[in-house]
Amino acid sequence: MTTLDVLGLCGSLRKASLNRHAMRLAGELMPKTMQLDPYDWREVPVFDGDVLAAGLPPAVAAVRERIRRADAVLIATPEYNFSVPGGLKNVLDWTSRGDDQPWNGKPVAVLTASPGPLGGARVQYDLRKVMLYLNAMVLAKPEVFIGMAATKFDAEGRCTDEGTRKFVGDQMVALERWIGAVQRMRG
Amino acid sequence: MTTLDVLGLCGSLRKASLNRHAMRLAGELMPKTMQLDPYDWREVPVFDGDVLAAGLPPAVAAVRERIRRADAVLIATPEYNFSVPGGLKNVLDWTSRGDDQPWNGKPVAVLTASPGPLGGARVQYDLRKVMLYLNAMVLAKPEVFIGMAATKFDAEGRCTDEGTRKFVGDQMVALERWIGAVQRMRG
Amino acid sequence: MTTLDVLGLCGSLRKASLNRHAMRLAGELMPKTMQLDPYDWREVPVFDGDVLAAGLPPAVAAVRERIRRADAVLIATPEYNFSVPGGLKNVLDWTSRGDDQPWNGKPVAVLTASPGPLGGARVQYDLRKVMLYLNAMVLAKPEVFIGMAATKFDAEGRCTDEGTRKFVGDQMVALERWIGAVQRMRG
Amino acid sequence: MTTLDVLGLCGSLRKASLNRHAMRLAGELMPKTMQLDPYDWREVPVFDGDVLAAGLPPAVAAVRERIRRADAVLIATPEYNFSVPGGLKNVLDWTSRGDDQPWNGKPVAVLTASPGPLGGARVQYDLRKVMLYLNAMVLAKPEVFIGMAATKFDAEGRCTDEGTRKFVGDQMVALERWIGAVQRMRG
Repeated sequence: MTTLDVLGLCGSLRKASLNRHAMRLAGELMPKTMQLDPYDWREVPVFDGDVLAAGLPPAVAAVRERIRRADAVLIATPEYNFSVPGGLKNVLDWTSRGDDQPWNGKPVAVLTASPGPLGGARVQYDLRKVMLYLNAMVLAKPEVFIGMAATKFDAEGRCTDEGTRKFVGDQMVALERWIGAVQRMRG
Repeated sequence: MTTLDVLGLCGSLRKASLNRHAMRLAGELMPKTMQLDPYDWREVPVFDGDVLAAGLPPAVAAVRERIRRADAVLIATPEYNFSVPGGLKNVLDWTSRGDDQPWNGKPVAVLTASPGPLGGARVQYDLRKVMLYLNAMVLAKPEVFIGMAATKFDAEGRCTDEGTRKFVGDQMVALERWIGAVQRMRG
Repeated sequence: MTTLDVLGLCGSLRKASLNRHAMRLAGELMPKTMQLDPYDWREVPVFDGDVLAAGLPPAVAAVRERIRRADAVLIATPEYNFSVPGGLKNVLDWTSRGDDQPWNGKPVAVLTASPGPLGGARVQYDLRKVMLYLNAMVLAKPEVFIGMAATKFDAEGRCTDEGTRKFVGDQMVALERWIGAVQRMRG
Repeated sequence: MTTLDVLGLCGSLRKASLNRHAMRLAGELMPKTMQLDPYDWREVPVFDGDVLAAGLPPAVAAVRERIRRADAVLIATPEYNFSVPGGLKNVLDWTSRGDDQPWNGKPVAVLTASPGPLGGARVQYDLRKVMLYLNAMVLAKPEVFIGMAATKFDAEGRCTDEGTRKFVGDQMVALERWIGAVQRMRG
């Protein structure tokens, strides 16, 4: 039995990001058939069509291939100004280019954490719309919104909230099933 | 009589961007009371909260102050993957930080151009939602969508389509009125 | 000094609707310069263009004129299936017809209540997009989301939560200012 | 070989609706394995939770069962005020109730027609968001937007535009495949 390779993309670059904590939590709570590999996309430059015309920058080619190789992608992201963080969107913009873009048919799960009470409720649907364009297969349910997230992780980034552990764990179980369902669908 | 200073933000970095052409067209067709100043935001780095904690990078401080000084901002942007280009969103993310963020109460107009038939219909509402968070005052009507834009500008970037000239010119007249209305509103 | 006439539209027809409770609360907490008049739109039939062609049904003509006469409209609505309740949207669809539609330039405030934790976070932006088409002037801030609303009103529909009272009261104060600002804007 | 039963829901009640024409066109262009059955939802009353508590009205129970029985649903809808027509949304609101709601896992395709140039670009994503809540399986691509639709159908409602015939026919072929993919996915 091969382990399912789940690429982790965090929408925040901040070291102590609440979403980075949430992503790590998802990695811990995953079924043993899955393994999370967080990806550092910091070196991806801002998209410029003139640069693209001259060839993919190495950091873009790297993330593109890493997505392609993954069995699934987990996106954990904050909400910036009611929508997708520009940096994360920029990674999606670069990797959407070319006929062989790597998101096509890829199982994806989304979770969001925020210091406020809504937990990222506004960003998830914008992100799903982007993923629709990319033809990714985004897990529908359960949705995970971690509101008041600063109160749910300790100084070391460990989750101290049972409800959150349950929601995130349930989503990872659903993601495992979803990967299987998408594989059956693609025949 | 002082001239109204309209800052231009193009969502694409590409030199021959259709939206850059459209923005230039808006500058030409503006009432004589207004003057467009396109801004090059290329040097703005990808947002990182740890960098912010150490102080605003110079390119961020510069665009922030330029927005603050403007009487209005015109955003001309492509649609990337059904939403706001990551690079442009990143500029908005940076400039949204701080209690004195420069978008608060600022008159804004949005136009979009695309090679396809819809002309950016999907991106405008995502961008308006972001602007709502920023408390900017976005002109409601007329909306401008320049579809099939590659057929409406020549090799030098000049608009060859009368309909487009009319729509863009009408929007600039409406923006002039809107600046006045917002000034009255703010007392 | 004339009292500001605020029309109340509740997105739910249910008698014990949490949003009806929230609307009543807003009426109680309004500045004394404002008075809330809840409107019962139950008789508005489902929109049919063939019916419109034969003339506005009486229930539609009535709500249309009532909106026109109001100084502002307060919409308190649940979220149904991540978006605007069909019945409320249907009232908006009918009243949007005709060159003299009554929403044009009308100050509007939106609040949402829900039994779940998000308090209607998904519906507010869809409703704002509809209001954009109608050229209504929707108050931007403060947003009011009443999550876990069933725990915040008693059996008689009275609000028992101080935080909710404060948020709703603050929004009504902001609406009063917004009505003045829109009046100045319109000259 | 059994024929695939495709239920048709038109977002407009108007007899000469452009979307009704477009739905009929989809029925003609479907692969021979599929058959379209347009459904008249006119008798569905406006949703009221107090009515629901007393039992489903007959018109609601009927459309609910009809959806459940279908192999797929085709929704052809206009855009009203930038979003889903209230009447159609109301049908979705009613049929979303109960643990055994009929949309769960149902293959769905969406097409939109409008007299204006955008062809319903704004409504499709709101409708997809609603369908996400319902856990329906909405065909991602190809999207079909029929802009300037009044010029593409004759007085008898027959499509006179080759491009439109091709787009709609391609979508129906994709829907046939999608039904099979969803069946494989559900195991």
